[in-house]
Amino acid sequence: MKQLLVAKIGGNIIEDKDALNQFLIDFSKIEGPKILIHGGGKSATQLSEKLGVKTEMIDGRRITSAENLDVVVMTYAGLINKNIVAGLQKHGSPALGLTGADANTIMATKRPAQFVDYGFVGDVEKVNDKMIKGILDMGIIPVFCAITHDGNGQLLNTNADTIASEIASAMSAHFEVSLFYCFELKGVLEDINNKDSVIEHIDLEKYAKLRDDQVIADGMLPKLQNCFDALQKNVASVHIANSEYIKDNTVKHTTLSL
Amino acid sequence: MKQLLVAKIGGNIIEDKDALNQFLIDFSKIEGPKILIHGGGKSATQLSEKLGVKTEMIDGRRITSAENLDVVVMTYAGLINKNIVAGLQKHGSPALGLTGADANTIMATKRPAQFVDYGFVGDVEKVNDKMIKGILDMGIIPVFCAITHDGNGQLLNTNADTIASEIASAMSAHFEVSLFYCFELKGVLEDINNKDSVIEHIDLEKYAKLRDDQVIADGMLPKLQNCFDALQKNVASVHIANSEYIKDNTVKHTTLSL
Repeated sequence: MKQLLVAKIGGNIIEDKDALNQFLIDFSKIEGPKILIHGGGKSATQLSEKLGVKTEMIDGRRITSAENLDVVVMTYAGLINKNIVAGLQKHGSPALGLTGADANTIMATKRPAQFVDYGFVGDVEKVNDKMIKGILDMGIIPVFCAITHDGNGQLLNTNADTIASEIASAMSAHFEVSLFYCFELKGVLEDINNKDSVIEHIDLEKYAKLRDDQVIADGMLPKLQNCFDALQKNVASVHIANSEYIKDNTVKHTTLSL
Repeated sequence: MKQLLVAKIGGNIIEDKDALNQFLIDFSKIEGPKILIHGGGKSATQLSEKLGVKTEMIDGRRITSAENLDVVVMTYAGLINKNIVAGLQKHGSPALGLTGADANTIMATKRPAQFVDYGFVGDVEKVNDKMIKGILDMGIIPVFCAITHDGNGQLLNTNADTIASEIASAMSAHFEVSLFYCFELKGVLEDINNKDSVIEHIDLEKYAKLRDDQVIADGMLPKLQNCFDALQKNVASVHIANSEYIKDNTVKHTTLSL
């Protein structure tokens, strides 16, 4: 089976022009089919502030009112996505920016209001793996932002880590997929105060222990859950690492396994 | 040769939710390959106002500072483009939103500052007709906003009428292209105060006369120039009409010819 790289980048790269440019250079050098997914929460929050739109977060998730949705669509699908695409073109990578609405690549359903009403937040229902494969087969690099749609005209805000996991899983029907979560640290840390204390391997047993011991908590929990979801849905390998890993896969990082 | 419809919609439809929805229903019903191009200047001006970013227009063209560029990218490529794409998906049309940077579909060069420095405004250099044909061949409807790129990482603001004309011309290598400029009036008017005084046919000779007599002026001049440019570059037919024309091509409208 042919290999496919699915990489997700977050705020630490997106918000830093030089870091982003360096990442796009490194990402462009990787041969073979690849998909990029990006977040952009900090930029959205900044634009919200400028527009006087209230930002409300619960457990790290954005409560997405109609006004918030407009802001995230403008920020993720507009400003960030298109500058990444133009940056990749500069480095010779034929990139194509996408939301889940584009070519119906990711269908989601609005999350039902239960204990919390998250507003226009979508849970991924179906990744259109055949369409994405068709795009890859044209030699194009899909660049996804964290916006999906419900098929009924409604755009929805969806977590970028989850989108990366769902895309990687769906594309495993066609490729041997490596999923790479790129973030500010070197990997999952044993001691949050020691940036070199990278836990190099985490399996489900170790994950349970780390969770019980509260070594990992908060934002790292859903990220790791996305990793294990991907592994359970046939993704070949999952890594959490710093962006350095994209050019040198011998640097210390965290590899997940079941 | 297979037929291709290239339609451009402007502010009167984009800014009106019901009108846009009706247009997308009608547009979805048209069979065969088609491309949609949209503007969005009024929305961009509104967002600029909210953000305290100055909007400066010269001869109906936006002076595009770095801040203005961010605003138009957010508005055109983000908010408007993605809502149109989601709306088309709702009506069963497999739409894909694009800037010229996406899949390198439209390369432009930054307009040199001569008498006026327009800032980050791009003049179309090359439409990637083969890539757009590849997308159409996948059964996808490309939806272009008025953003291009220079191939060196810079996004550029480009007039939507011009993009429509350039795309229609380039695609004439592969299709018999009909170009349709959809706007608020029924067509080009003999008397601006009489909305029924549609001039049904305008050729180059008539165009020169109308211009000399100042029957047409201001924004209509570049629009008509785009029409004639398209006809001179092998576009099969060019029409200026109200959105009604999309569902009933017997309504009074203006047809251009050389």
